[in-house]
Amino acid sequence: MTQDVYTYLQDNRDNLLKKLEEFLSIPSISTDRTYKKDVLQAGHFVADYLKDIGFKQVEIKETGGHPLVYGEWLEAEGAPTVLFYGHYDVQPADPYELWDSDPFSPEIRDGKLFARGASDDKGQVFMHLAVFEAFMKTEGKLPINVKIIIEGEEEIGSENLYPFLAENQNMLTADFALISDSGMVEKGQPTMLYGLKGFTGLEVTVQGPNRDLHSGLYGGAVKNPVMALSHLIASLKHENEQVAVAGFYDGVEALKEEERQLMNEAPIEDYVKTTGVPTTVPEEGYTVNEHIMARPTLEINGLYGGYQGEGTKTIIPSSATAKITCRLVPGQDPTVIQDLIIQHLKTRAPKGVTLDVKPEPLSAKAYKVDPDHPLIQKAADSLAKAFNKETVFVRLGGSIPVVEQLDQLFKIPVVLLGFGTPEDNLHSPNESFPLDHYDKGLDVLINFYNEVAH
Amino acid sequence: MTQDVYTYLQDNRDNLLKKLEEFLSIPSISTDRTYKKDVLQAGHFVADYLKDIGFKQVEIKETGGHPLVYGEWLEAEGAPTVLFYGHYDVQPADPYELWDSDPFSPEIRDGKLFARGASDDKGQVFMHLAVFEAFMKTEGKLPINVKIIIEGEEEIGSENLYPFLAENQNMLTADFALISDSGMVEKGQPTMLYGLKGFTGLEVTVQGPNRDLHSGLYGGAVKNPVMALSHLIASLKHENEQVAVAGFYDGVEALKEEERQLMNEAPIEDYVKTTGVPTTVPEEGYTVNEHIMARPTLEINGLYGGYQGEGTKTIIPSSATAKITCRLVPGQDPTVIQDLIIQHLKTRAPKGVTLDVKPEPLSAKAYKVDPDHPLIQKAADSLAKAFNKETVFVRLGGSIPVVEQLDQLFKIPVVLLGFGTPEDNLHSPNESFPLDHYDKGLDVLINFYNEVAH
Ligand SMILES: [Zn+2]
Ligand SMILES: [Zn+2]
Repeated sequence: MTQDVYTYLQDNRDNLLKKLEEFLSIPSISTDRTYKKDVLQAGHFVADYLKDIGFKQVEIKETGGHPLVYGEWLEAEGAPTVLFYGHYDVQPADPYELWDSDPFSPEIRDGKLFARGASDDKGQVFMHLAVFEAFMKTEGKLPINVKIIIEGEEEIGSENLYPFLAENQNMLTADFALISDSGMVEKGQPTMLYGLKGFTGLEVTVQGPNRDLHSGLYGGAVKNPVMALSHLIASLKHENEQVAVAGFYDGVEALKEEERQLMNEAPIEDYVKTTGVPTTVPEEGYTVNEHIMARPTLEINGLYGGYQGEGTKTIIPSSATAKITCRLVPGQDPTVIQDLIIQHLKTRAPKGVTLDVKPEPLSAKAYKVDPDHPLIQKAADSLAKAFNKETVFVRLGGSIPVVEQLDQLFKIPVVLLGFGTPEDNLHSPNESFPLDHYDKGLDVLINFYNEVAH
Repeated sequence: MTQDVYTYLQDNRDNLLKKLEEFLSIPSISTDRTYKKDVLQAGHFVADYLKDIGFKQVEIKETGGHPLVYGEWLEAEGAPTVLFYGHYDVQPADPYELWDSDPFSPEIRDGKLFARGASDDKGQVFMHLAVFEAFMKTEGKLPINVKIIIEGEEEIGSENLYPFLAENQNMLTADFALISDSGMVEKGQPTMLYGLKGFTGLEVTVQGPNRDLHSGLYGGAVKNPVMALSHLIASLKHENEQVAVAGFYDGVEALKEEERQLMNEAPIEDYVKTTGVPTTVPEEGYTVNEHIMARPTLEINGLYGGYQGEGTKTIIPSSATAKITCRLVPGQDPTVIQDLIIQHLKTRAPKGVTLDVKPEPLSAKAYKVDPDHPLIQKAADSLAKAFNKETVFVRLGGSIPVVEQLDQLFKIPVVLLGFGTPEDNLHSPNESFPLDHYDKGLDVLINFYNEVAH
């Protein structure tokens, strides 16, 4: 070899960026059937690129919806196998008038690449493909074995991905999974995301009289459904933000002092400034960082009953409804938590009203990998080296359903190597991706693939 | 005299009913400016009738809105003076297609007179005029002195009546007030309504973040406004229906055993059947009848915050609002109660959110007259005699603002002699008034006017 991988990527930077721009120019909006052909074209772009690099078994797998692309390269004898996941579909771009340049005519301004999908997730998928190309063109091989799935339905719920994963477990066997579809806590701050929260929810309706009643003529005879629901909802959580549902915290891992420290060191946004609240209010005994990252939450997403217009309408409302969701941590089973809440509510249902509970059908377990796991350490080191800054370790209050699926199905670590920034405007006008994250990210991937090969 | 008052009314029944139908044919809908002339015409009908009977000082008093009719007959030397109040305006009649006969073409079917205003309040006002006519035509005089106000804006809030009352207190001096604008608890069941509840209210908004937030990314940092509001609302009332606001019951008269008995004997609707609730839920220590009639209530008329659509939206809502009203009993001051609730809420406002309270500008004190008062007893006896059934004594959970005004301004007893029934469809299509209530009601009025003369 006369050229190393790093140099190859530097020397071919313009061509590769041009190729990425070509990828980003395809309006692969999965939610809009008008773009069905474009979504397919983006799938072909990925499949063709994989074939060009030298991947085998490259296939456009038909699903009930948009196809997914599968490919593999398994000639790194003795080296581990990674299952790499990403998506080539994008969010819609409207309102178009809020974009400073056309969402599907990529443009570089102020060191950022502007286009729908630049960060989520075409840009980050492309980085892996470029690095694979560089390895093949310089060393003639990849450092590890790669199985790759790039789907076209992430932005619409991955409905067809999950059955595909379940039905092809043998084909997809790997030592670990890898996803680059997330971001860093701050621009330039290498971030190791090692945990995500799970999710469950339900809707509860308190049914009172068969119609709204005159509060003068019926007040004193009939239980007020909104008052009854307020009592029920208030009983779910203490004022100190602890959830009051019996058994809710059973099985939740205690936070190790060392992990608390990791979390509290992580730079997070100034919530008072960004949300306008008078003060933050974490669970008693925990910091905001700890609660957001590692403690379960129970939130009321909506509550409504009775009159909502201007002024006064003296009624006893016929019914009242609340929408409740929880973010869960390792040790909590979504179905069990759902049942505990339902039991809690049913036990406390006052007489004079009836309770109707609709469990939310979607749920997910929390995901967490040991931050000391060698793969995570290697990922963190690769990030630190390329960005020349110590990596922070964080867990996220949100959920990424595919991570939970991969975890549950394959029982392998899932490494989340995200290169986005909080300023990327994901799912909004003017989505962008900073070019220095792109450049340094390529170095991270080279470092990481090399490291895990041993 | 060759003819007595009763006989006069019997002999002239057809003519008088025809005259009432003429009155009911005028579409005096006060809320709709299109009917301004008709409202005025109905006022003239009343004024002309009073003049024909022999009332003096009959005047159509201009107000900022529809005029009110005033008249007096003060020649019953040594006898007391009544201030009689009623209204000649009516509710709109739409939806017209739900009427079985034209709302302004009165029709008698099944022993009922169908027309808008038949019961509320033209029919009942007319009964007094007919009785006055009968007295004048047979005895040449009325048994007592009469000052009469019939307004044209009751159905739109009596905005101009209250200033008129306040500005003309000397002219309107009387020994008691009399109103026939209510009903009986059951058809054929003479009912003495001797108390009404007062009213106050407020709206409270809990303001959290400046926009709806992602529940995964912000849950644990930010107080949930809907949860905060649920805690506040739940704190207002115990589960046994007692209001938990400190001072709320201060000054409320204890119910005498004898009054409790009166209330519990009153036939009231079968609330489980009419409203579909599993069971009624009165305040602990009181029956439904007692709570409805004589105990104050606090109701949530509406509550809303966050997502209300189908399915799930995982947000922390930006704010939540509740509308609260109370029905008050004698001894409670609306302004004091409003302040107590506001204080209660403000004291309990949790950190992390701000509270915005809007006091409801309209309020009214409760009204109650001693059921043993001679006037009330005479009214009850007059009812019992004409309907040949013992009179029940009830208080109402609702409010009639003009009663409170008369009470406050003139400090005289207000006698509520109502002849309507629960089946009259007030404010609804097919309003009607049973002719036997009309006929017996005339006898009641003769009895009553004769009785109070002594
Ligand atoms: Zn994505
Ligand atoms: Zn009325």
